[in-house]
Order: sequence, then structure tokens, then C-alpha cells
Amino acid sequence: MLTLYLNWNAVCAQKVLLTLEEKNIAYTLVHIDLAKFEQHDPAYLKLNPAGVVPTLVHDQQVVVESSVIIEYLEDAFPDARLRPPAPSQRAQMRWWMKTVDDTVHGSLRPLSFVRFAQSYAQTLSDDTLREITARMPKKDLAEIWQRVARSPYSDDELSVYLHKVEDVLDRMDQALAQDKWLAGDEFSLADIAMTPYFRRMVQLDKQVLWQGVRPHVADWVKRIEARPSFAVLDRVKQMFGPQS
Amino acid sequence: MLTLYLNWNAVCAQKVLLTLEEKNIAYTLVHIDLAKFEQHDPAYLKLNPAGVVPTLVHDQQVVVESSVIIEYLEDAFPDARLRPPAPSQRAQMRWWMKTVDDTVHGSLRPLSFVRFAQSYAQTLSDDTLREITARMPKKDLAEIWQRVARSPYSDDELSVYLHKVEDVLDRMDQALAQDKWLAGDEFSLADIAMTPYFRRMVQLDKQVLWQGVRPHVADWVKRIEARPSFAVLDRVKQMFGPQS
Repeated sequence: MLTLYLNWNAVCAQKVLLTLEEKNIAYTLVHIDLAKFEQHDPAYLKLNPAGVVPTLVHDQQVVVESSVIIEYLEDAFPDARLRPPAPSQRAQMRWWMKTVDDTVHGSLRPLSFVRFAQSYAQTLSDDTLREITARMPKKDLAEIWQRVARSPYSDDELSVYLHKVEDVLDRMDQALAQDKWLAGDEFSLADIAMTPYFRRMVQLDKQVLWQGVRPHVADWVKRIEARPSFAVLDRVKQMFGPQS
Repeated sequence: MLTLYLNWNAVCAQKVLLTLEEKNIAYTLVHIDLAKFEQHDPAYLKLNPAGVVPTLVHDQQVVVESSVIIEYLEDAFPDARLRPPAPSQRAQMRWWMKTVDDTVHGSLRPLSFVRFAQSYAQTLSDDTLREITARMPKKDLAEIWQRVARSPYSDDELSVYLHKVEDVLDRMDQALAQDKWLAGDEFSLADIAMTPYFRRMVQLDKQVLWQGVRPHVADWVKRIEARPSFAVLDRVKQMFGPQS
């Protein structure tokens, strides 16, 4: 019995979904509506004290943090290997996973909030804003809400974030000029960890960051999107996304 | 042939040292004098583009990022196991390693800079400060230098950082009330990852955070300090630290 608590549009939850699909593991989904702040419900906070998605519950085991979850799935379900056997390639894989968590995630987050949450955040009264941010266990998230609601990021600040992403894409283009996948010749958790952020960059109309300028990244994106696992991202959007 | 580039007082480098000692792996040390900014030497930047310690070179393989390095050592030298076999305990181990990287490291860093770098940073001319920070590949480090040199952290800011550490220590005390070590009944990379930060808190006179208030943490600290591996931290201090 394996249950994934996710939001259809949350990048970290998408990493876990892709891993489940690649490994052909049976799962049940529970959708957490972030716009309704269901991630702060006391019952959910018991599973995930940070109040974020995803959370994995496998039998009695609760696992949080997407990078930890996908390594857990690899340990618990070793079939359909997504972690290369050579220690040096595993190190490469984990370096990319850490770069996704530390640099890509943190840099794309303000850009995403500006695009998707700012106009809503600016309609909130001071009282509501205070109430919402006070409920957030992660203070860095509360700070971003405060910023987009009341003191929007300047163009200079946003371009610093974008520049950090471009640095990673440069490293990625160099790596993919040598190897088929990020951790060598095998598709791995590193490629999975990076995938949702490319989908996010498409939502932000940032395909210009690779199309025509970083050919090895552009080729990698095509190969990623052609994998059967990728279709799960559209399926959960249809299941749980806004009905328009 | 295994070489570790370290600084005697750098917490992340100490994680790797402790792992090498626990696993009884032979190694050579190269000391990087951070006060002389040797981490920005072009030759070192070729190994470690982020310009930080540690860097591990094993045969031809260069591995950076301390959490990635210690998992690499476990993969490459499986004897003297430091990663529990059960997937659920491995997930626990990695959750703690990630908490150390994401929360403990980032929260203790400003406190350490205030104590150890601020008085020096404030003597720097604008030109020198600009020159030093411009050379730093990691812009978050440059920002901390800028802060301690020119607009010191307020007491309120520092107490927010300290509070984040206290939250982690609360979780740790709960975990250690259940299990002997952070990832269960076996000493693991999670305990190693946490150890240098306790040494750092002692340097910052913060033993009050556990002595008499968080008994399970206090007991864990005693057991950590009694391990033969712990003595390496004093040995590198004697080898490379300030001669007074």
C-alpha cells in the first residue's frame, strides 16, 4: 500500500510521480489543494510538519522531502534501476539532485510566485496575509508570500535568479555533451529530479533558455518528453488541475 | 590514492574527515587556507568551481559537496558500514543529512561569521571588500561577507537563526528518545553529518542548547565525542590551525 500526497503543479511532487511511473509501482494519490492551504491542515501537518508536498506513505512508513523519497523508492523497489551502479556515477547523480534542490528550486521559486501567485497575493488584506503566513511552518515560504504581496521583487532581483538557472543550464549542456544522461549513460534519478523544472520553465515561457542556444539540453528535453513516464504530468493536471 | 582538500575549521570538510576515520580509509590532506582565500586559486577552482571546501579526489574521480562525498565513500568503500540496510532507516538518515545541509548549516553560518569574521571584515576597505566578494563564485557567501562588513545582522535576525537551530535540536531530542542514533540503532552518516555543527556550537559557547535541557541530545554528544574518530578534529586543528 503506497500513497502519495501531491499537488498536480508542485515540482517536488512531480519528481516522485515520475519515479513511481518509471519503476511501475502501484500507488494511490491524495491531492492537496495548495490554493486552499490544505497543506496546513492539522492532519496533514502530522504527516509532514513542514507543511509542503509531497509526502509518501508506504505501509506504515512516512517519508518526506522529494530527494529523500526518490532514493527511498530506489532502495525499497530496486527493480527498474534508476541509480547507476558505479560509485562515481552515483556521486554525479547526487550532485545534480543537490543542485536541483539548492539552486534550481530556489531560483525558479520567486519567478513562479511572481507569475502564478502575485496577483492573488496582492488582493489579500493585511489581516488575511498575516494569518496565512503565520500558519506556514517554512519561514522562507512565508517571506516569499510577503514579498509578492507587498514588496514585489525588482527586475534586477529576478534577473539574478534567472542567471543562477542559466549557470546550471550551462553546466548541464557541458555534461550532456559528454554523456547521454546527467549521471552517465543510464537514465537516473538526476534526470527525474530535473524534469519538473523544465516543465515549470515552459509554463514561464522560458524555452529560449535552451532552444537554439544549448543544443545538448534541448536534445535531452526532447528525449525526456518522449518517455512514457512523462505523460503522467498531464494526467494529474487533468485529474486535479483547474477545470477551464 | 585519495586526497582530501580541507580547512581544519570548515564544518563540511570535517564531515568527510570523520567518515574517512570511521571507515579506516587511508588519505592525504591538502590544507586550503580560507583566510588567504586559497579556495579561489584558479587551480583549486578547476577542482571545485564553487570555491569551497571540501573536495575529494579519489584516483581520477573528483567529488564535491560534503553530503555527496560521504555517500560516495560509502558506495566506494562499503566496509565498516555507515548506511543502515533498511530502506526506511536510509530515508531517515538522508532526511537528517538534508536537514543539516538546509537548516543547520545555513542558520549557524551567520552566527559563525559574526563571531569569527566580522571584526576582520570590518577592517577591509571598500575596494578590498569588493575585490574579495567579486571573486566568490557563491553569491550567498559574498552576501554574508557584505553583511558582516557593512550592515551587521541585528540581534533579531540572529535570534531567528538560533531559533531554527533550536527547532532542529527539539526534533533531534525526540528522535534520540526513541533510537540510539539518528537513523536508528546503527551509527550512520546522519550522526557524522551533525557532529561538526556541535563542535561549532561549542566554539560559539552554545552548549546551553543541550546541556540540562535536551537530555537525549546531551547523551548523544557524549557518545559522539567518545568515538575514536572524533579525535581527528583536534589533530587537524593542531596540524593546520593557528599556532598560538
